[in-house]
Amino acid sequence: MGGDFGPRVTVPASLRALKENPSLYILLVGDQAQISACLPEHSAYLSRIEICHSDISVAMDENPKSALRHYKGSSIHLAVQSVADRKADACVSAGNTGALAVISRYLLKMYPGVSRPAICTLLPSRAGECLMLDLGANLACDEYDLFQFAMMGSAMAGVMQNKASPSVGLLNVGEEELKGTDQIRRAAALFSSSPHIEYKGFVEGSDIFTGDVDVIVCDGISGNTALKTSEGVVRFLFQQIRQAFNRSLYSRFISLLARPVLKRLRRSLNPEQYNGAVLLGLQGVVVKSHGAAEAEGFYRAIVHAQRAVKADLCQKVAEKIQAQ
Amino acid sequence: MGGDFGPRVTVPASLRALKENPSLYILLVGDQAQISACLPEHSAYLSRIEICHSDISVAMDENPKSALRHYKGSSIHLAVQSVADRKADACVSAGNTGALAVISRYLLKMYPGVSRPAICTLLPSRAGECLMLDLGANLACDEYDLFQFAMMGSAMAGVMQNKASPSVGLLNVGEEELKGTDQIRRAAALFSSSPHIEYKGFVEGSDIFTGDVDVIVCDGISGNTALKTSEGVVRFLFQQIRQAFNRSLYSRFISLLARPVLKRLRRSLNPEQYNGAVLLGLQGVVVKSHGAAEAEGFYRAIVHAQRAVKADLCQKVAEKIQAQ
Repeated sequence: MGGDFGPRVTVPASLRALKENPSLYILLVGDQAQISACLPEHSAYLSRIEICHSDISVAMDENPKSALRHYKGSSIHLAVQSVADRKADACVSAGNTGALAVISRYLLKMYPGVSRPAICTLLPSRAGECLMLDLGANLACDEYDLFQFAMMGSAMAGVMQNKASPSVGLLNVGEEELKGTDQIRRAAALFSSSPHIEYKGFVEGSDIFTGDVDVIVCDGISGNTALKTSEGVVRFLFQQIRQAFNRSLYSRFISLLARPVLKRLRRSLNPEQYNGAVLLGLQGVVVKSHGAAEAEGFYRAIVHAQRAVKADLCQKVAEKIQAQ
Repeated sequence: MGGDFGPRVTVPASLRALKENPSLYILLVGDQAQISACLPEHSAYLSRIEICHSDISVAMDENPKSALRHYKGSSIHLAVQSVADRKADACVSAGNTGALAVISRYLLKMYPGVSRPAICTLLPSRAGECLMLDLGANLACDEYDLFQFAMMGSAMAGVMQNKASPSVGLLNVGEEELKGTDQIRRAAALFSSSPHIEYKGFVEGSDIFTGDVDVIVCDGISGNTALKTSEGVVRFLFQQIRQAFNRSLYSRFISLLARPVLKRLRRSLNPEQYNGAVLLGLQGVVVKSHGAAEAEGFYRAIVHAQRAVKADLCQKVAEKIQAQ
């Protein structure tokens, strides 16, 4: 029910995921009437769909703690509960991020040694992909929170990208040692002294896409700002590209010829391709989709959840943290 | 002497500025030998250049307070001093940002009612341009700091862009009222209750480039992260565009035909075009150039300083703040 579009996006995305993966089953949690209206009357995939009705949904601007206390039968609650009850292997939601994090933490519990879930996503980089966390679940972070993010991010890069000793950068306002707040410098000292982190020093926003490090650690405010800014820039640039190719008769002619190139470019850079962030540290797979994601994006988030389940991500991240 | 390249960039940029503007005079502050090595032997512009020698320069990783105390005769110190002494109308530096802010505040003083300088720059947006501050001079900001930024940013948009009542957005991790830290919500309350700010509510990183608001207010960490992330994305995208046009014989052929279009696009989106951030709130024009700026970028920073002087920016910002 969550996100800007609800079942209009989540249902078609689910149908596509069912088509692509014959071993997938999907439990759609939400308003039965609204969901059914988005389902085709006859489809081979209906046999692998189950609807779990809920007529309560948590609004996008609801306070997370109030969502936990007062919305017990809400779709977000029931969806996470289905993972806690092992009725589902993973939960994917485009709903209220704070509510999803608080409810997941309450129902699924954290792995020992982890205090709060961190939102972690893959971003494109020159070297392939870069993992970044936290992206908005934790606004105020001390050095120990950041250290946990570094440990979990390293473990995830190991599990999901087969990187033996992933390099870690700490996001800051400059690369020089003296830059940043006291807290970020304390985190840097903690990172440097740990044998379990391949720490490479401070990185800046411009380093996210260079591929210089495999994992970028930051507090939720900086991570969220960086992620959303980059989405904004991509949209702005594509609009500028369209305008540039529309300026004259000549450029319009070129744009016709260049269409396959531009189309491929657009597809590979579309932020929807990278939609789906894992809430790391939980004893269960919970994937957060961007609230504004369309069917393509929500489909990617489902695929991301499947990858996490197949790789046994949560368990392996926990093992790595406990072994260290 | 500052930035990644020193006189190799600042001197050619100065020569270009002198060429473009016959009424401009430039005082080059730094190591005479290094500066002279970058100057042509014969040039009509030499008569409008004066060198102010200093053999001390503040390193990019020097602590700002130590730069103020222990580098009295440094190039950055003398450059700001020349504005304080009214020998120069403006100072442009690619040096250590923190040192520039601290030294400027000490030598030039703030306008009454302003506690600290804020770094403010223009960014491209669909609607033309958007002003954003602070971009890294103030890492920890309370609601009153943010309110001062909003006032100064509004005044600057009025003076430099002739906007009668510029709209102001407050950068946050979400647009809903409950989002963000207590401090940002307190700032929002302060903004809402002020008759002097055309406050439009929270904006996210993705809104910087949409042009929905004229001024975006944020703390230095978020602003710096957003700015540097956007530079990184632009560089990454242009590299992806190059790759896409290099993939096949057909796409290489198209890229030849599309060269004028792509070149114009590159020029208009080049972050160097937007280089040059004003340190607002000071009793004098100080413009900070990106440390990594090349001659094109540093030239833009000089032009920006000229625009600020011609518009009598500092005085007008002070008048607006005092009148309210």
